[in-house]
Amino acid sequence: MPKMSAPITVCAKLLLCQIKQPWKQLRKLSLSGNPSVKEILSQPELRGQKISAKGWVKAVRAMKEGKFVDLGDGSSQQILQVVVTPCCDKRDITFGSCLEVTGLLEQSKGQGQAVELVAESISLVGPCDVSGDYPFKPRKRYSADYSRQHLHLRQRTNSFAALLRMRNVATQEIHRFYQSLGFIQVHTPVLTSNDCEGAGEVFHIMPGIQASGPRKNTPDTTDNSTPLMFFDTPAYLTVSGQLHLEAVASGMSKVYAFNTAFRAENCQSRRHMSEFYMVEAELAFLSSLDDLMQNVEDLVKTTVKRMLETCESDLTLFFQHLSPKGHKEQVQKMLSSEFKRMTYTDAIGILRGQPGLKSKAEWGDDLSNEQEQCLVKQAGGLPVFVTDWPASAKPFYMRPNPDGKTVACFDLLVPDVGELCGGSLREDDLDRLEAKVAKLGQADALSWYVDLRRYGATPTGGYGLGFERHLQWILGINNIKDTIPFPRWTHHCRM
Amino acid sequence: MPKMSAPITVCAKLLLCQIKQPWKQLRKLSLSGNPSVKEILSQPELRGQKISAKGWVKAVRAMKEGKFVDLGDGSSQQILQVVVTPCCDKRDITFGSCLEVTGLLEQSKGQGQAVELVAESISLVGPCDVSGDYPFKPRKRYSADYSRQHLHLRQRTNSFAALLRMRNVATQEIHRFYQSLGFIQVHTPVLTSNDCEGAGEVFHIMPGIQASGPRKNTPDTTDNSTPLMFFDTPAYLTVSGQLHLEAVASGMSKVYAFNTAFRAENCQSRRHMSEFYMVEAELAFLSSLDDLMQNVEDLVKTTVKRMLETCESDLTLFFQHLSPKGHKEQVQKMLSSEFKRMTYTDAIGILRGQPGLKSKAEWGDDLSNEQEQCLVKQAGGLPVFVTDWPASAKPFYMRPNPDGKTVACFDLLVPDVGELCGGSLREDDLDRLEAKVAKLGQADALSWYVDLRRYGATPTGGYGLGFERHLQWILGINNIKDTIPFPRWTHHCRM
Repeated sequence: MPKMSAPITVCAKLLLCQIKQPWKQLRKLSLSGNPSVKEILSQPELRGQKISAKGWVKAVRAMKEGKFVDLGDGSSQQILQVVVTPCCDKRDITFGSCLEVTGLLEQSKGQGQAVELVAESISLVGPCDVSGDYPFKPRKRYSADYSRQHLHLRQRTNSFAALLRMRNVATQEIHRFYQSLGFIQVHTPVLTSNDCEGAGEVFHIMPGIQASGPRKNTPDTTDNSTPLMFFDTPAYLTVSGQLHLEAVASGMSKVYAFNTAFRAENCQSRRHMSEFYMVEAELAFLSSLDDLMQNVEDLVKTTVKRMLETCESDLTLFFQHLSPKGHKEQVQKMLSSEFKRMTYTDAIGILRGQPGLKSKAEWGDDLSNEQEQCLVKQAGGLPVFVTDWPASAKPFYMRPNPDGKTVACFDLLVPDVGELCGGSLREDDLDRLEAKVAKLGQADALSWYVDLRRYGATPTGGYGLGFERHLQWILGINNIKDTIPFPRWTHHCRM
Repeated sequence: MPKMSAPITVCAKLLLCQIKQPWKQLRKLSLSGNPSVKEILSQPELRGQKISAKGWVKAVRAMKEGKFVDLGDGSSQQILQVVVTPCCDKRDITFGSCLEVTGLLEQSKGQGQAVELVAESISLVGPCDVSGDYPFKPRKRYSADYSRQHLHLRQRTNSFAALLRMRNVATQEIHRFYQSLGFIQVHTPVLTSNDCEGAGEVFHIMPGIQASGPRKNTPDTTDNSTPLMFFDTPAYLTVSGQLHLEAVASGMSKVYAFNTAFRAENCQSRRHMSEFYMVEAELAFLSSLDDLMQNVEDLVKTTVKRMLETCESDLTLFFQHLSPKGHKEQVQKMLSSEFKRMTYTDAIGILRGQPGLKSKAEWGDDLSNEQEQCLVKQAGGLPVFVTDWPASAKPFYMRPNPDGKTVACFDLLVPDVGELCGGSLREDDLDRLEAKVAKLGQADALSWYVDLRRYGATPTGGYGLGFERHLQWILGINNIKDTIPFPRWTHHCRM
């Protein structure tokens, strides 16, 4: 056995790189340990060096040339090829097991990868008995429906790990977009005493009721017909941060939120969940619906561009194997085109000219899925802003148009998933707003919201975009539940 | 009246700047409209130009030299001084009102600001009748307790606007920190069927129960003694994303979350809320508690450094007027020092040597607030990692030390607020974990968690840091409820 020198880590090298960036200096301390697979594959200075790598076995291949292991650690779609030399071969190097491999990182003799790690020692960190209940077997592809049955291990599959990496990149890009425009991120609350949309499809919260019954220290109450109150008021899980965001915009001008929202809808659709993420923005001093739509279009495009720039191999996996045929071209077309804009009234006119639709379009009605997709198809598969909807079809907080019938708002419709984003200019007439809120029976509950128009009001506009629907559309994912690590919907709240 | 040319916007200028950065190009489209006060004050090329500015009146000053308005829009702690020329003076230019001012941006003739906007026209966008119920009056300072009574308008105060800007900067820096180290952000769920800590201090959720009683479409149930179920299992608001994060780490290696957490504690303390943000990280392939603590120390320091670099005037407001005397020096000392580390056993020894403490330190007990602060004081006011606690005082998921009595964990104690962060290496012995989980009666509920050790297990460690406590400590804020836009605690869920 050859004499082994101590394996180097990337630590020292990073330290040197970072001396020029003082604010980064303290971070190198967190990088003790071994380089990730992504670092091993991307840092040329590691070639020819002795390194240690840790990860999970993605495949074991016994070939004429020898035995090879594909090692992955989630940092990258690419795997590190390990050459299993006879001296360190072990029976328990199985699919799914966790290894630490030390050896020389060499230029690969085979095709398909630039480097390979020639093992000098392999230690089994965590075995994986694939003959047992482990839900994934080597050399098999699993449907998304199957993988979703095993949420706690789903990120071991290539496709879901790719999804998580792209979700991360999209998330960061959304922050970068708003920050570059001078927006302030605001953490709007999950718990609220406002039932914003008044739709009733909300979750109500109660303190400390366990499955085994009420616990000891609940607040005093003897009336079992009313929920136990913790906040002295009924409290709900938010359906939208909009109203709170408007309050903050009334002092900070440009604000956004990237938070969870909730619906208690009894719905099994492939486009709905009970818990999901919304990107919401609110702009004071805004009086142009066109500017607002442009901001949404920019947000969508910059997110996708960043994914294309930084997640090439993950996107390729989706475009080649998981999304519908021609999907990549559709995404590229979207990026180089302007989104379509049409009024609701024009949209109804278009729909009435379409034969073969199941339901007839009536002015005043919401649009069905079929009608939405018909409009998108008419637009050549491009996203469509449908603007200026009937006031009766939209919530109280939208600003009326001069026609007296419609409100200054939009729905952004995209292929397959339908409504991606909705926004509007906000009602800024104090008297009109007071009358609407009173009519809803919310004069007390929303007096704070009316106050925003009473004191130093500004024209304001904003929108909410469904983050998971964005991913679903761009990646061509059939079921929205495969865009989030832990989906929740009717009858499903695993883990 | 002089002939007025159309005011320029910053739009065209930004377009030119951004052509070199193609991915930024599409963003200029979102910048239509007027420059923010921050841009007006910081962009030298605007001087001598005719511009429009919008914002709220922070002060009106009638001086010998004329009338001046301080205009602010939340983008900056600094205000834009407007010279109110007689031609455009109006009686309703009052404190709190919203104005659009057009005029020439000139070098200031007075002291205290570099530029001032000499008004050619002022239009009143939204009046503010300060003789009415508007809670803030000109030239008055308000206590944090008072401002908190008016959550929807609180961001109009200088101090809370400053807090929101700094909270935003800290948030972005936390993302930047983890991303630079190759961590993936994971959105752990708010709704969970795991009652992680088993403490009972959780919120339970139910679908669609309004204050007026159960709604029509609730799932079928006739037994009023059990909560209506939406998910077929009791569901709670998460107290920590840790267990879910561990699952994702078992495929992605390095992950973090920046999410809400909840406690249904009936607690009026100035250090607790029912809804708060936690920064949680989980690292696979980690077997050194020291490395984990270093990562926490780096996170804390980099966040504060970024705030010092980019929020100078906001920080100055806090350090000069709001935080305790000598606070700035304490923060600077912290940044240039290493955090202290001591074992729990040593800490107990130190505490037993301290006369005058209310309660005697006993090995095995948790530490009281007073004991925590005593340790911090002994460390010269620096943060202290207290490590290796008795197993009996900590949750089941921590890894036992070889001594058989303690576990490999830490609490990070900081001045005033106490526990800022808690972390540990995780139990990675399958048999031991199974036994512990069974003892808790959670063998079924946590079988997924045990699976993480059954299949390709790795040594793992992680921590959770209270984001609001971090802000409370660094900014010297007395009550944690003044670190978050919409605080929720017992009896309080406004808006």
